[in-house]
Amino acid sequence: MTNIHLARPEDADRLLAMVAACHDELGIRQSDADRAAALAPLLDGSPHGVAYMIGPVRAPIGYTVISFGWSLAYGGLAGQVQDIWIRPGVRRRGIGTEVLYALPKALAQAGLCALSAAAPPATPTEIFFRRARFANHDDSVVMTLRL
Amino acid sequence: MTNIHLARPEDADRLLAMVAACHDELGIRQSDADRAAALAPLLDGSPHGVAYMIGPVRAPIGYTVISFGWSLAYGGLAGQVQDIWIRPGVRRRGIGTEVLYALPKALAQAGLCALSAAAPPATPTEIFFRRARFANHDDSVVMTLRL
Repeated sequence: MTNIHLARPEDADRLLAMVAACHDELGIRQSDADRAAALAPLLDGSPHGVAYMIGPVRAPIGYTVISFGWSLAYGGLAGQVQDIWIRPGVRRRGIGTEVLYALPKALAQAGLCALSAAAPPATPTEIFFRRARFANHDDSVVMTLRL
Repeated sequence: MTNIHLARPEDADRLLAMVAACHDELGIRQSDADRAAALAPLLDGSPHGVAYMIGPVRAPIGYTVISFGWSLAYGGLAGQVQDIWIRPGVRRRGIGTEVLYALPKALAQAGLCALSAAAPPATPTEIFFRRARFANHDDSVVMTLRL
């Protein structure tokens, strides 16, 4: 069973390096300072989300960030998988899937009523979430306006 | 200019009737008690979201619910349009569009860095958000797991 622990301020450096690697893969460009500033509240107990370190505390092999929001339709606090990232060298061993099975249990105990994610159709990411029982109810796509 | 005000506990009955009508249109089934319980925290100052009443205080013509979550990619607090609903009798007059232009300004002043929404491609809802400058960066669909 892969260890998962809630990221704390002392995890910041190790977590930041992984977030930078993940965002680099996704083509998200951000300065190191902006990335650190965006991450800090999640390590300091913000009500808006959490980060989990995956693997050994001093040598994590991945991380996931969950944002907390409110869903009227699901009737309460709902999480959104923002990032879930495993180091390239240890991919395709089922670690991410294991995390996606363990996480909902922990989040349900914390009072969340639903967990969602967004993935392009017919991609490995979509298959990954579908395998973990995530389902889409329609073909709604996510649209964003930067404020 | 259409009046918009933050929904408070005294708006609960009027708001609940509109949420019920909106969810009925969307095919979301929920008991009145569950709907009231899901809405109450938003009226009581929850950090996880807000509801706005659209139109005259005592005779609102619509509402919108915004969920607040955390986005690493956008670098901070991000809103999600959960519902935006206008009474059928006053639709197609641009009221929703007017709200979607006013809201981002108010939310940006409250410190939000992005606002997102989900809509099926090539539907009036998608066109509505696109007109208000919402854009999709890829064709990611929303997938959910009930906890």
